[in-house]
Amino acid sequence: MLEGLMQNDFQLTLAHVLERMRTVNATAEVVTLTDDGKRRATYGEVVGRVDRLAAALGGLGVRQGDRVATFAWNTQDHLECYLAIPCIGAVLHTLNIRLFAEQLEYIINHAKDRIVFVDDSLVPLLEQVAGKCDCVERYVVIGDGPTGTLEPVTRYEELLAGSEPLHPGDYPELSERAASAMCYTSGTTGNPKGVLYSHRSSVLHSLATGLRDSLGVSRSDRILPVVPMFHANSWGLAYAAALFGADLVMPNRFLQAEPLVSLIESEQVTFAGAVPTIWLDVLRYANEHDSDLSSLRSVVCGGSAVPRSLMEAFEHRHGVEIVQAWGMTETSPLGSIAHPPAGAEGEERWEYKVSAGRIAPFVEARIVGAEGEPLPRDGETTGELEVRGPWVAAGYYEDPDGSRDRFDDGWLKTGDIASIDSEGYIRISDRSKDVIKSGGEWISSVELENELIGHPAVREAAVIAMPDERWSERPLACVVLEDDGEATSAELREHLAQRVAKWWIPDSFAFIDEVPKTSVGKFDKKVLRVRLADGELEVERAERAERAEAS
Amino acid sequence: MLEGLMQNDFQLTLAHVLERMRTVNATAEVVTLTDDGKRRATYGEVVGRVDRLAAALGGLGVRQGDRVATFAWNTQDHLECYLAIPCIGAVLHTLNIRLFAEQLEYIINHAKDRIVFVDDSLVPLLEQVAGKCDCVERYVVIGDGPTGTLEPVTRYEELLAGSEPLHPGDYPELSERAASAMCYTSGTTGNPKGVLYSHRSSVLHSLATGLRDSLGVSRSDRILPVVPMFHANSWGLAYAAALFGADLVMPNRFLQAEPLVSLIESEQVTFAGAVPTIWLDVLRYANEHDSDLSSLRSVVCGGSAVPRSLMEAFEHRHGVEIVQAWGMTETSPLGSIAHPPAGAEGEERWEYKVSAGRIAPFVEARIVGAEGEPLPRDGETTGELEVRGPWVAAGYYEDPDGSRDRFDDGWLKTGDIASIDSEGYIRISDRSKDVIKSGGEWISSVELENELIGHPAVREAAVIAMPDERWSERPLACVVLEDDGEATSAELREHLAQRVAKWWIPDSFAFIDEVPKTSVGKFDKKVLRVRLADGELEVERAERAERAEAS
Repeated sequence: MLEGLMQNDFQLTLAHVLERMRTVNATAEVVTLTDDGKRRATYGEVVGRVDRLAAALGGLGVRQGDRVATFAWNTQDHLECYLAIPCIGAVLHTLNIRLFAEQLEYIINHAKDRIVFVDDSLVPLLEQVAGKCDCVERYVVIGDGPTGTLEPVTRYEELLAGSEPLHPGDYPELSERAASAMCYTSGTTGNPKGVLYSHRSSVLHSLATGLRDSLGVSRSDRILPVVPMFHANSWGLAYAAALFGADLVMPNRFLQAEPLVSLIESEQVTFAGAVPTIWLDVLRYANEHDSDLSSLRSVVCGGSAVPRSLMEAFEHRHGVEIVQAWGMTETSPLGSIAHPPAGAEGEERWEYKVSAGRIAPFVEARIVGAEGEPLPRDGETTGELEVRGPWVAAGYYEDPDGSRDRFDDGWLKTGDIASIDSEGYIRISDRSKDVIKSGGEWISSVELENELIGHPAVREAAVIAMPDERWSERPLACVVLEDDGEATSAELREHLAQRVAKWWIPDSFAFIDEVPKTSVGKFDKKVLRVRLADGELEVERAERAERAEAS
Repeated sequence: MLEGLMQNDFQLTLAHVLERMRTVNATAEVVTLTDDGKRRATYGEVVGRVDRLAAALGGLGVRQGDRVATFAWNTQDHLECYLAIPCIGAVLHTLNIRLFAEQLEYIINHAKDRIVFVDDSLVPLLEQVAGKCDCVERYVVIGDGPTGTLEPVTRYEELLAGSEPLHPGDYPELSERAASAMCYTSGTTGNPKGVLYSHRSSVLHSLATGLRDSLGVSRSDRILPVVPMFHANSWGLAYAAALFGADLVMPNRFLQAEPLVSLIESEQVTFAGAVPTIWLDVLRYANEHDSDLSSLRSVVCGGSAVPRSLMEAFEHRHGVEIVQAWGMTETSPLGSIAHPPAGAEGEERWEYKVSAGRIAPFVEARIVGAEGEPLPRDGETTGELEVRGPWVAAGYYEDPDGSRDRFDDGWLKTGDIASIDSEGYIRISDRSKDVIKSGGEWISSVELENELIGHPAVREAAVIAMPDERWSERPLACVVLEDDGEATSAELREHLAQRVAKWWIPDSFAFIDEVPKTSVGKFDKKVLRVRLADGELEVERAERAERAEAS
């Protein structure tokens, strides 16, 4: 092979991100909301503390490849951990504070975390499992609050103060293939699975967040990452800000609409990322208080499908465009971004905006059928979405079964049922395990749920498959009514009849008090299926909807 | 080492760029201006022709690593070569049509080009050297014009028509480290030096052009690359457009202001790249004809320092921002981009805009003194600019001397004298070989030239060093007066006295008819130095400017 005579050995590592903070982004700032008001530091100051933390980790015996965990909100201190841990060659393991205790215990032990950095406000949560995690040699508590029963324990500030800063030249030279971070994803079946990021994947993903067709993160931005740093790396916003020199506005644990809106207004935030629930809260609050959100150039929203009504309200009332994006912990997470093409207007524009987005550069996507055969990208045919690319996982950490089941010849099986059109826009119709296979055709549980929620009396709706002798499966709609809402199954079927194909209309309804949720707040249909199988759901059966009616 | 479990083996190659054109950018278009009006093709159609060309190259016996040259303007056909040649693993060698015949002969033979693709309009130029390039086995003429004495020769369209398209799955799997392209840079001393790009460098560079803080190339753009595809890869614009799905508007050989402005207006061009001379012509024409340049969101300008007056005129008269960028063939070329920080206004903003720009992400830069010692990044200290990064050259093709002389422990010595400030903005004061070392201090020839050109009677000015017993070197100003201009050396010294330090003012002046130029139109000071040494310059000596006056 004739090799190109370029600096192919220049390693794509987070060392470069730290170098940029140190040399050209030193005047950018990170603002953290605290109980005592706002704490401010320049990136130059942050780097000084990172150098101390890096040295301190060495002093604690942390070696390359060791896992060091964080159990923390989005703060300046967490950002320091984000940089120091991978830059000395250790692996930053971001623990999801919303996991059930058993899951938390499982992943700390599975990852063999040697040290856990924990916010003082989260000490009580961590205490529940600390006694069962023998691998942890030390807890480092961030803040002045009680350290509880954690043992042995060190204060974060004392750790920094007791350490001479590492000199820039004393950081190790790292391979871009080395592990930099890990994050467990809790599927609805089996144990959580660990995604082990590499420096290369983290850095390329960060670069991609700066693309104008992607999130467009820029030095001129002031970024509010509401999405937690323990949730798919805060969608890459922390490293992106550090790389490009954007300011960071850290909400800490103050995730209610009032403090968020106040931060946007007072800090002139230009860009923010959060799940739909947060934006719904922000919208309601901003409408009531006539808030000024005009500093926002755009916000990114994902994690679950973004309601069009939410996007419309933000645009019309506040002049702020919500951009939907799709991704997974396994995809770092940026997989697709829903920017409409130039010139698309009105309804056409909305058809793009409600999609899961256009495949990001360097991500390759395809859809495959039940036998794994590639299907046409015609915008109509649906199949399981598979992706690959430099920031897509290649397997799970010490989980050969998961690694085998979820990967297909180098492609990650996303578990989403989707179509892809000729321009690369992905439209997700369902999760593969939730889709209802009826008479050889697929019925989208997500679409039925969306239409049911459109009924004024319905607060929540989860549609699952019911075994059916003739059609193999038929949809069962589990519906939660509003406190003052009234609707019969007949009325809901009538509502759906105007909106979906006749043969999609559920034959069966169950009115329930609440849809069970997973630890990260997603509908847990597994629980509903168990209840159905155990006869615990009170099912109303309507007259059989014959498939023949559909034609 | 604990490796990250990501798809680290996903190769960053131009195959991905071709894949994106094929799968998600197929509806983007390339428009080429021709003698017979405009030729249009979608990227989908272009890819179909690339598949044919790729197969045809195989049929001609081209193997991986072989050099295949182009001698062509910016056209759709050239774009096809840009994709097919590297995607089969061969090396695209873009020949600069403006080289002197001896240089052209040298680089074809040095690179051992096996095939040369040539525009019919350029056949006469290539004929001058064809007889001396035994390595070339075949010429492929693009267009219907005469093929002259080129032998053996094939028509491009016949080559495509006679070939079955290569199937997407039949392209070879390439390493990202493999050579993808080469471009020779003609220094002012010695033979041209070959920069050998890798797939990895080309692809990462393309990705960086899409950053909002960089060129911001986007799918919504219609790009006019005026800068030639044989000049530092058209600054990366061709691959960037292909990757992001921007439309391309190809000017072919019609580089006069009239056709360019007409293309901008009729094709609603949003982004363009060209050297200052072109924009000066465009400005003059657009002013005279009241042209509408409002479709342009921005233009990028580089290759030599961009006059502030040009940038101001574009903004004030046409509402179009010119963004200055710095780079070299050795840097792919994007090294820095002069976006001012958010909030900078008035004079402060212009101080950033006239800089060579802020160091691009993933490029690292430093300045070093005469002994190679790193100097402070204080915005004042000047030294030789050195850069490194994934799209920076690591050496020259089969040129051990050049590779040794121009690289310093992994850093490329740019030959520019510059300062770097704490925000990463580079300000170039001179070429290292042109700077005048006087009494242990440096005098910037570029700054003196800029001030001299500011005098209404002066058309061109080149300042070189004259040997001096006491000060080691003193500046000699070689001045070309306007046809109707009159100025004595005393008047010019008086002009400078109000603008530069006293000890910078040249003691000696030579009034000449023209400044000699290199093949790419840059001042050739080497020729002036030879003339000075040979006593061919008529030098007027003013009274000695004593260094003591400076204080």
